[in-house]
Amino acid sequence: MKEITKKNFEGYKYIDGGVCAAKGFKANGLYCGIKKTSVSDGNESPISGNKNDIGLVMSDVMCAAAGVYTQNKVKGAPVTVTKRNLETTGGKAQAIIVNSKNANTCNADGEQKACRMCELAAEQLGIKPEEVIVASTGVIGQILPIEPIENCIEELAAGLSYDGNEKAATAIMTTDTVKKEVAVEFEVDGKLCRLGGMGKGSGMIHPNMATTLNFITTDCAVSSDMLKKALSEVVKITYNCLSVDGDQSTNDTCVVMANGLAGNAEITSAGEEFEVFKKALYIVMMNITKMLAKDGEGATKLLECTVTGAKDLDTAITVAKSVICSPLFKCAMFGADANWGRILCAVGYADADFDINKVDVSLSSKAGRIDVCRNGSGIDFSEEEAKKVLIEDEITISVSIGDGEGAATAWGCDLTYDYVKINGDYRS
Amino acid sequence: MKEITKKNFEGYKYIDGGVCAAKGFKANGLYCGIKKTSVSDGNESPISGNKNDIGLVMSDVMCAAAGVYTQNKVKGAPVTVTKRNLETTGGKAQAIIVNSKNANTCNADGEQKACRMCELAAEQLGIKPEEVIVASTGVIGQILPIEPIENCIEELAAGLSYDGNEKAATAIMTTDTVKKEVAVEFEVDGKLCRLGGMGKGSGMIHPNMATTLNFITTDCAVSSDMLKKALSEVVKITYNCLSVDGDQSTNDTCVVMANGLAGNAEITSAGEEFEVFKKALYIVMMNITKMLAKDGEGATKLLECTVTGAKDLDTAITVAKSVICSPLFKCAMFGADANWGRILCAVGYADADFDINKVDVSLSSKAGRIDVCRNGSGIDFSEEEAKKVLIEDEITISVSIGDGEGAATAWGCDLTYDYVKINGDYRS
Repeated sequence: MKEITKKNFEGYKYIDGGVCAAKGFKANGLYCGIKKTSVSDGNESPISGNKNDIGLVMSDVMCAAAGVYTQNKVKGAPVTVTKRNLETTGGKAQAIIVNSKNANTCNADGEQKACRMCELAAEQLGIKPEEVIVASTGVIGQILPIEPIENCIEELAAGLSYDGNEKAATAIMTTDTVKKEVAVEFEVDGKLCRLGGMGKGSGMIHPNMATTLNFITTDCAVSSDMLKKALSEVVKITYNCLSVDGDQSTNDTCVVMANGLAGNAEITSAGEEFEVFKKALYIVMMNITKMLAKDGEGATKLLECTVTGAKDLDTAITVAKSVICSPLFKCAMFGADANWGRILCAVGYADADFDINKVDVSLSSKAGRIDVCRNGSGIDFSEEEAKKVLIEDEITISVSIGDGEGAATAWGCDLTYDYVKINGDYRS
Repeated sequence: MKEITKKNFEGYKYIDGGVCAAKGFKANGLYCGIKKTSVSDGNESPISGNKNDIGLVMSDVMCAAAGVYTQNKVKGAPVTVTKRNLETTGGKAQAIIVNSKNANTCNADGEQKACRMCELAAEQLGIKPEEVIVASTGVIGQILPIEPIENCIEELAAGLSYDGNEKAATAIMTTDTVKKEVAVEFEVDGKLCRLGGMGKGSGMIHPNMATTLNFITTDCAVSSDMLKKALSEVVKITYNCLSVDGDQSTNDTCVVMANGLAGNAEITSAGEEFEVFKKALYIVMMNITKMLAKDGEGATKLLECTVTGAKDLDTAITVAKSVICSPLFKCAMFGADANWGRILCAVGYADADFDINKVDVSLSSKAGRIDVCRNGSGIDFSEEEAKKVLIEDEITISVSIGDGEGAATAWGCDLTYDYVKINGDYRS
C-alpha cells in the first residue's frame, strides 16, 4: 500500500539499484549500535532491534557534487560540516557517511563529531576528510556516541559493494515504514547514463530548499556548477513542494554526486543535454517526493494537488502547497469526504494573485474523476461517486485558477489518528 | 475544564453581561430552524436539536463602529455586505444580526440574502439597513434559506433585552462546546465605562486580521477613527496570534460598537484615555482569544507561547506563532511530553531575525516551571517534574530569544485524536 504508482516518461526507463544504479558507485549499511535516546528531530525509528543505523556510499572516482540544506536556523552539525566540505573542495566529493538514531544537533561537540565521521570514512577509503559528505538523523540534543562508528568503520568500508544500495537505504530509515529508492536510465551524448537515489523521512517534513535526507548519484558527466543549477531548479518543484506536517527539520540535506563514468562529454552549460539530465533528476526526485508523502507519519493516502492556469510557476506552487498543508483538508481526505469547501478555503488563503471566481476544482483517482466546484461556486455531484474516488489511496486534487501558463504539483498525505499517536507518544 | 484562568489587570474589573455589559445594549437569540446541510466553513454545530441559530444585538442609540475581516480571497457574502455598510455610514452602526448553521458563502445569491437579513432587522428596529452589521457561520456553498429568518424576525426583535447576551452568545456557537463571553469595567474621564464581547469558532481558526465571529460592545464614547485604530492594534496581538489548525476561515469578522452612553468626553485622539480604552479592548479580546484556543476542536489543553527579548514586536509574534502552529509540538503537548527539540525546531524555522544560540526555553503551568534549553542547547531536567508541569490543562511555553524589548504571546491548543475525528467524519 505504501508503494507509489510511477508515471512513465518517454526516453527514461525505471531501473533498480538506487544509489548503486549509476556506474562506479558502491554502498553498504549495517547496525553499529547507536543508542536510541531522548529528544528527536522527528525522525527516530520505531523499529526496535538491530536495524541498520550507519550507511556508506563511495564512488570509484571523484565526483562533482552539489547540495541543498535546511533553512532552519537550528542546523544539525553535519549540515554545517557538509556545506563547508563542499566549499573547501569547490563542489567535489567522493563518499557519503550517514547515521540514523541520533541527529547530532544542538550538541556542543557536534561539529567535532561530524568531522570525526568524515575522518573515519576518509581513512578507510584513502581519500581526504573534506571529500566526504556527512549526514545524521534521529534524536536532537543528545551527544552522538562516536565509539560505535569507530568500531564498525572497517567492516562498513570492507562491505562496500556495487549492489549494497538496499543496505544503505535501510540504514537511513527512521520512522519510515518502507525504504525509498528510485533510479532511471537515459541517454546523453549517445551514452547510456544512470541516475538513482535514496531518501528517508516521514515526520517533521515541510522542506524549504531541501528535505530530510536524500542522496542521489549519477554516472552522467556534469560540472559542479551545472549540477548545482539542476539541483536547485528541480528541488523547487519536487522536495520543496512536499509537506507532511508543516514542520521543517533541522537536518534536511539533499546531495547529488556525478562521477562521469558514463563517458559522455561533460555537461558544462545549459542546452538540450542539460535538459535531458535535469529531467532524469526530476523523475527520480519527484518519485522520492511521492514516496516520502505516501509514507508520511500515520498516512493512509498520498495526496497530489496539481494547480494549472496560474500566471507563473511561483503562484501555482503557492496555491498547491496551501491546499496540501491544510489540516482540515487532510482530515477530510482521511475520511474520504468530498468537502470541497475546505479546498476552496485553502486556495483562498494562499498568498498568491488570482481571481477566486475563476477557480475550478476536481478530485480524481484510479476510480474516476468528479468535478466539485466551477468558477468558485459548488456544483452538483454524486456523493456516492465521490466516495468511490476518495476511498482510493492515491488522490489527485486538480485546481485550475485561470488562463495562465503556470502549473505545479504539491504532494502530501492525510492527517490521521496515527499521526497524533506517533507524535503524542513519541518519546514515551 | 474549558474555562480559562483569567489574569487580573489593575484598574479593570471583570463583570458579567457579555455584549450587554455596556449601557444601552440589548440582545436576543433563538432557534429559527436553519437547516444543517453539506459542506462547511469548518464551523458546523455538532449539537443536534433546536440550538439557537439566530442572534440580534441592538444599541439604544447610534454607535461608532469598526470591523476587521478575513483576508481569505473566498469571502462570505455577509463579510462583503458588512464592509460596504460600514463604508456607507462612515463607521456607524446600531445593530448586529447573525446566524449559525449556514455560512452564506460561495452562493450566487449570497449578497442578496445578506442584504435581506439587514433589511429584516432594520424594519423591526426602525433603522436603516446599512446601519446593520450582518454575519453568518456554518456550511459553505449551500443556499441560505431566508424563510426561517423572515418568520422569526418579529419574535427575535420583540425579545431583545438588556440581559439577553447569553441567548445571543449561544446563537453564534457552532462546534464550540462552551459559549464565550468576557466583559470589563474601567474608568475614562471620571466616568465608569463597560466593554464586553462574545466570540465563537473552534475549527478553521488561524486568523489574519480578524478571526471567526467576534462582537464587542462598549458604552465608552470613542470616535470611529480611534475605534478602528484601537481595533487594528489590539487584533494584531490577540486574535491574530491565535491558531487552532492553520486554516483561515472565509467568514472571519470582528466588529466593535461604541455607543457613548457612559457619558465620557469622546475619545478622538491618542493619549492617556485612549490607552485606557485600548487596554480594556485588549483584556476582553485577549481573554476571548484564550477561550477560542482552549475550546479548539478536540483540544485538551490551552497552549500559550510567550516570546521575549526580540528586536521588535513583529519578530516576537512570528516566533510565538511558529511554535503554536507546529503540529509536532502540538502532538507532544497532547502527550504531556517535554520534547523541547520540537519547540527549538519551530523557533528555528520561524521567518525572523535573531541568534539561535541565545535562545532559552522553559515550560510552566500552575504545577511549576522547568527550564529545558539554554543558549540553544538542551540542559538537564527531571522528566518526572516535566510531566507534572505538562499534565495540566494550561501550559505556558516561555521563549527568550535575545536582549531586545520585543515581546508577544500566541495562543493555541494541542492536536488530538478528537481533532482528526471531528474533521475526518465532519460531513458524514
